[in-house]
Amino acid sequence: MIVLINPNSTAAMTQAMLQTARQTVPTIDIEGWTSHDGPPAIQGEADGVAASAPLLELVKKASAQGADCIIIGCFDDTALPEARALADCPVIGIGQAAYTVAALAGGRFSVVTTLAVSVQILEDNIRSYGLWDHLGRVHASNVPVLALESDPEASARAIEETVRKVIAEDKVQTVVLGCGGMVDIEQQLAHLGEVKFIDGVRAATHIAAALV
Amino acid sequence: MIVLINPNSTAAMTQAMLQTARQTVPTIDIEGWTSHDGPPAIQGEADGVAASAPLLELVKKASAQGADCIIIGCFDDTALPEARALADCPVIGIGQAAYTVAALAGGRFSVVTTLAVSVQILEDNIRSYGLWDHLGRVHASNVPVLALESDPEASARAIEETVRKVIAEDKVQTVVLGCGGMVDIEQQLAHLGEVKFIDGVRAATHIAAALV
Amino acid sequence: MIVLINPNSTAAMTQAMLQTARQTVPTIDIEGWTSHDGPPAIQGEADGVAASAPLLELVKKASAQGADCIIIGCFDDTALPEARALADCPVIGIGQAAYTVAALAGGRFSVVTTLAVSVQILEDNIRSYGLWDHLGRVHASNVPVLALESDPEASARAIEETVRKVIAEDKVQTVVLGCGGMVDIEQQLAHLGEVKFIDGVRAATHIAAALV
Amino acid sequence: MIVLINPNSTAAMTQAMLQTARQTVPTIDIEGWTSHDGPPAIQGEADGVAASAPLLELVKKASAQGADCIIIGCFDDTALPEARALADCPVIGIGQAAYTVAALAGGRFSVVTTLAVSVQILEDNIRSYGLWDHLGRVHASNVPVLALESDPEASARAIEETVRKVIAEDKVQTVVLGCGGMVDIEQQLAHLGEVKFIDGVRAATHIAAALV
Amino acid sequence: MIVLINPNSTAAMTQAMLQTARQTVPTIDIEGWTSHDGPPAIQGEADGVAASAPLLELVKKASAQGADCIIIGCFDDTALPEARALADCPVIGIGQAAYTVAALAGGRFSVVTTLAVSVQILEDNIRSYGLWDHLGRVHASNVPVLALESDPEASARAIEETVRKVIAEDKVQTVVLGCGGMVDIEQQLAHLGEVKFIDGVRAATHIAAALV
Amino acid sequence: MIVLINPNSTAAMTQAMLQTARQTVPTIDIEGWTSHDGPPAIQGEADGVAASAPLLELVKKASAQGADCIIIGCFDDTALPEARALADCPVIGIGQAAYTVAALAGGRFSVVTTLAVSVQILEDNIRSYGLWDHLGRVHASNVPVLALESDPEASARAIEETVRKVIAEDKVQTVVLGCGGMVDIEQQLAHLGEVKFIDGVRAATHIAAALV
Repeated sequence: MIVLINPNSTAAMTQAMLQTARQTVPTIDIEGWTSHDGPPAIQGEADGVAASAPLLELVKKASAQGADCIIIGCFDDTALPEARALADCPVIGIGQAAYTVAALAGGRFSVVTTLAVSVQILEDNIRSYGLWDHLGRVHASNVPVLALESDPEASARAIEETVRKVIAEDKVQTVVLGCGGMVDIEQQLAHLGEVKFIDGVRAATHIAAALV
Repeated sequence: MIVLINPNSTAAMTQAMLQTARQTVPTIDIEGWTSHDGPPAIQGEADGVAASAPLLELVKKASAQGADCIIIGCFDDTALPEARALADCPVIGIGQAAYTVAALAGGRFSVVTTLAVSVQILEDNIRSYGLWDHLGRVHASNVPVLALESDPEASARAIEETVRKVIAEDKVQTVVLGCGGMVDIEQQLAHLGEVKFIDGVRAATHIAAALV
Repeated sequence: MIVLINPNSTAAMTQAMLQTARQTVPTIDIEGWTSHDGPPAIQGEADGVAASAPLLELVKKASAQGADCIIIGCFDDTALPEARALADCPVIGIGQAAYTVAALAGGRFSVVTTLAVSVQILEDNIRSYGLWDHLGRVHASNVPVLALESDPEASARAIEETVRKVIAEDKVQTVVLGCGGMVDIEQQLAHLGEVKFIDGVRAATHIAAALV
Repeated sequence: MIVLINPNSTAAMTQAMLQTARQTVPTIDIEGWTSHDGPPAIQGEADGVAASAPLLELVKKASAQGADCIIIGCFDDTALPEARALADCPVIGIGQAAYTVAALAGGRFSVVTTLAVSVQILEDNIRSYGLWDHLGRVHASNVPVLALESDPEASARAIEETVRKVIAEDKVQTVVLGCGGMVDIEQQLAHLGEVKFIDGVRAATHIAAALV
Repeated sequence: MIVLINPNSTAAMTQAMLQTARQTVPTIDIEGWTSHDGPPAIQGEADGVAASAPLLELVKKASAQGADCIIIGCFDDTALPEARALADCPVIGIGQAAYTVAALAGGRFSVVTTLAVSVQILEDNIRSYGLWDHLGRVHASNVPVLALESDPEASARAIEETVRKVIAEDKVQTVVLGCGGMVDIEQQLAHLGEVKFIDGVRAATHIAAALV
Repeated sequence: MIVLINPNSTAAMTQAMLQTARQTVPTIDIEGWTSHDGPPAIQGEADGVAASAPLLELVKKASAQGADCIIIGCFDDTALPEARALADCPVIGIGQAAYTVAALAGGRFSVVTTLAVSVQILEDNIRSYGLWDHLGRVHASNVPVLALESDPEASARAIEETVRKVIAEDKVQTVVLGCGGMVDIEQQLAHLGEVKFIDGVRAATHIAAALV
C-alpha cells in the first residue's frame, strides 16, 4: 500500500492528486490522506511549521500501518529527511521525483512554481539533490496555491505566460510544474508543444510504484 | 507508445522483459522489439559492437514510427547517448533507471551483475550519472547472461550467494539486480529480507510511463 | 541574539550545550531553549516525529522574536530545511557545522555517533551537504544519548574505544563527535592525540557568530 | 600504434585530421581510418545511427589489430562508452580531450560548434564528464560540417562572428572549436587574440600519445 | 595561539584585520604578523610571487612556534595548499572561510572584489572548494586594495554601487566582501539591507577558533 | 617555448625530466630550469616553504621571457594556484596532468608516491581537481625522493612491491607513478602488465604541447 499524504488541509487537493495517481497507475494500491491539522496551503512561509508537525504524525501513522511507500504531496518536499528517518519504508517527495524524471529525460529543465517565496527553497532542494547541473531557472508564476482551485482560468493564463517566458529565454527541454495543484493545468499547456512537461504527482506515483 | 528494445537477439528475454513491464503498469502501451541482428547476449565484451549497430537502427525506426519513449533493455545502457541524440523522444536505459530509483529509496546501493567483465562498465556509467556517492560496490555473480535462462536454479543460487555477501559486507539499504535477465529472480530473494531489491526493467517502465 | 534550540526535552542537555556555547564565544548573545514537548532524546527513530513539530514551533517563535541566527542543537540536523524555510534568519545545524569545519581543517574526517540507527541519517546528510569526498566512515559507538548523562564513565569508555578504532583503521585527520551530548567527552579524548576532534556545538556557535 | 577513426565517410576530413595529428606529434605512430559506411557528415541527428555501427566495427578491428589507443574523430564523441567497452586499449574522443585540456588551461571555456542540433548533445557530454563548472556556453555557428570543406571562407567568417560574440559576452579564457573540421580555421582566428583556442584533434592526439 | 598572517607589507591592514578578529572573538588568543618582505598589496598579479615566498616563511615560523591555527589574511587564499602542507596545524584562508559561511547561510552568494584581475582567481578557488553551485557571480568594484586605505570614501561609494548592482541583478541572498581591506566598509552597507554581508576576516576568525 | 621548472635543486632530476619530455614530443621547444635555491628534494614537509619561493620567482621569470606554457615538475603540484595567478600563460602541474590522463584512460586509478607524508597532500589535490570518484587509493612506497637517484635498484624493488599490492587489492585499471623521479622506473614495471602506468612528466609534456 502506498500512502500519499497531502500536508495541507485542503481535501480537494488531496482528491485531485489521488485521482491523478490512480489515472497514472490504475492498478496501484494507494490511499490519499489529508493533513487536517495542516494549513490550507503551503507557500514556503510560516505555513511550513504548521504543516510539518501534523505531516510527520501522519508519516508515523502510515509507517505503523505497514505502508510500503509514502508520497509527500507538496512540491517543496516538506520534512522529507525527517520523514525518511521516521518511516520504515521509502518516502518520496513530489518535488524530488519531478526533478529526477526531468533529468532522465535529458538536457536541462526549468521549474514554474507559485510564489516568489518558494524559489530559494526549491533551488536549495535541487542543489542538495545533486541536480543543479540540470537546472535552467526556477520561475515564480505569482499564482497562489489556492488560486489554482478558486480561479483556475486566471491561474492557467498566468502559468501559461510564465511557461512562454521559459520557452523563449531558458533554452530548456523540459518544464517542471512546481506545485501539487498544477496537476490539471498540464494538458492545457500541451499546445505550446516545444517542451515536455513533468508533473510531480505523476512522477512520484511512478517512482513509488517502482519501489513496492 | 513505449518501445522496449532488447539489444540482444534472444527473443525469450524480450518476452520476459515485456511481461514484467506489463505487470508493472498494466495499462501501459508498450511493445517489445528484439534486435534480431544483435548477439545472443551482451556481456560487456565484443558483443557490444554487434549490439550497438542494429540497436540504433531499431531506435531510429521506433522514433520514426512515433514512439513516445524508448527503453533500452540491457543493463549496461548500450549506446544510450547515441540513442538519445538519434531519437525524437526520451530514451531510458534500464541501468540508469535502476540506479536512480535506488538512490531515491535513500542510503546507498550495491549492484549484482553477471560477469566480472561488466564491472568497470557499470562503474563508469554510475560515475557519469553523478551517482557515485550512492554506490556501495558492483559485484559480479559470475553467472553468464544466458545461464539465467538455461540453468535458472544454479543461477539463482549463485546470485543469492552474492547477495548474501553484499548484505554481510556492504552495509547498503538497496541491491540493484544488474541484468535484464534477473527479472524473475527478485522474488526468490525476498526471504533474505534485509535489503530492498530494484529491478531495472520495472524501474525503467515506470520512468518511461512518467514521461509519456 | 542567537537562539540555540534543543529539540529534545532534556533540559540538562540544553544547559550543557549553552554552557559550551558561552565558553566558546563568551561575548555571545545566546539563549538556550528546550523543546519541552519533544522526546527526552532523539536517536534517529520514532523520536523524530515528536521532535520536529515542537522544534519548528520554537523556530517560528524565535524568528518572530527577532532572532539573528538559530542553532538546532541535535546532530541529525532535525528539520533543518523546514526551519530554514520558516525562519527570517539563518539556521545552522550542529551536524552540518561540524562537518564543514572538519573539512576546512583539511583531509578527511570520520564521525562517531551514538546508535547504529543514526548512521544512515548522518550519511545522507553528509552526502546532501556535498561533503561525501571528505568522509572516512560514520561509526556507531552504541552509546544511547541519555547514557551520556546517566552513565558518563561507561559512555566515555565506549566512545574512546570507537575513536581508537577510527584511528587504527580510517586514516583520517579529524574525528567529529556526532552527538550534542558528547560535548564534555572531547577533553577526555585529548590524550589519544593523533587526531583532531570537532564538536558540533562549538562549531555551530562559531558559524552562527560569524553570521550575526 | 594509434588509430584515429573518422566516423563519417568524408575521406578528406580524415586526411585533414591525420595531417593535424602528425604535425602535432611528428614521431607519432598513427593511422587514419575513414568509416566508409558512415554518413558523409555527423550533425547530431539521424546521422548518428548510420555512424555508430560502422564506427564500432572499426573500433573492434583496430583493437583486434593491436592498437595501443583509439581516437574517435568526431566532436560529439560518437559511441565513446561502447567503444571503450569494446576495445582492449584506451579510447579517446576529441570532444572530451578538448574540454579536458581547456579546463586544465584554467578558468572557463565556451564551445563553438556547427549546428544548433548539436548543442544539447555537447552540453550532455560536458555534464557527464564532470566539467559543467568550467563551461561558459555552447554556441552554434550555423555552419554545416560539410560547408567547412565546400565553402571555407564563408564558414570561417561565420565562425569568427560567433567567436567574437563569445569574447564579448561569455567572459571565458578559452574557446573550444567544436568540430573535427574546424582544424584549419584556428590559425585564422589567432588575430582575435583575447582568448586561447583549443582544437579537439590536437588535444586528443596528445592525450593518446601520453597513454601509449 | 592563532596567528593571522597578512601576506602584504601594509602593517595598517594587519592591524585592521587583527582588530576585527579581536572584536569578533574577544577572548581569542591571536597575533597578527605582517609579511614585511611582501608587496604592499596583492592584487592577483605579479604581486603573488613576491607575497608567497615570505608568507610561507612566516607560516613555517608560526608552525614552529606552536601555533594552533594559522589564518592567511588575503582574500585570494595565497599559497593555501602549500601552507597546509607545511604547517603542523590547520591553515584557514579568509576567502574559503567567507564562501563556506556564506553557503551555510543558505541560498546563493555573489562576491565583490577589488580589481578585474582577481575575478578568475576567485572563481577558480570557489570551483576547487566545491562551492560553484552556490555562486551567483564574482564582481570587480575596480577599487585597488590600497585605495581602501588612501581614499576610503570614494572606495566605499564604488563598492556600494557594485553591491547595488548585485542586489538588482544576481538574486542572491548573501554578498561576500572579497578583500581583507573591506573590513570597515561592511557596516556602511547595512542600510542597503536586502542582503546579508559576509566578511572574510570575521568568518576565518570564527572557523579558526572552532578548530583550537 | 615551454619551460619545465624543477622546484628542487637536484639538477640531475631536471635533466631526467627534460630528457623524458623530449623523448615524449621530440619536436617540442622546451627548456628545463632547476630551482637552485630550492631544497634538494620536496617530500611534502618543511621543504615546501623552501621550494615555493624560488619556484615562483622562476615562474615569474619564465612568464616575463614569453613562455607559452610552464610545467611545474613536482608531483605535489607545488604552488600551482599561485603560479597560475602569476603567469600570463597556462601552468600545468605534473600531478594534475597525470591524474587527468589516468581518468581519461577509463575506470579508476591508484597512486604510488614516495613517503607517507605526501599522501594527504595528494589526496587533497585529487579532491580539489574533482577526480575523487576516479581514485582507488594513494599508497606510499616509503622510498625517499633522493633514493630514486642514489639507490635505484632498491627503490625499484620497493616501488614494484607497492605496485603489486595495488594490483592485488585496489582493482584499478591504472597506476599513477607519483613522483617526478620515478620516470625511469616505469619500464621496469611493464612486466607486471595487468595495469597501465601513467608518468606525470610525460602526461604534462603532452598537455602543455596541446596548449601551445
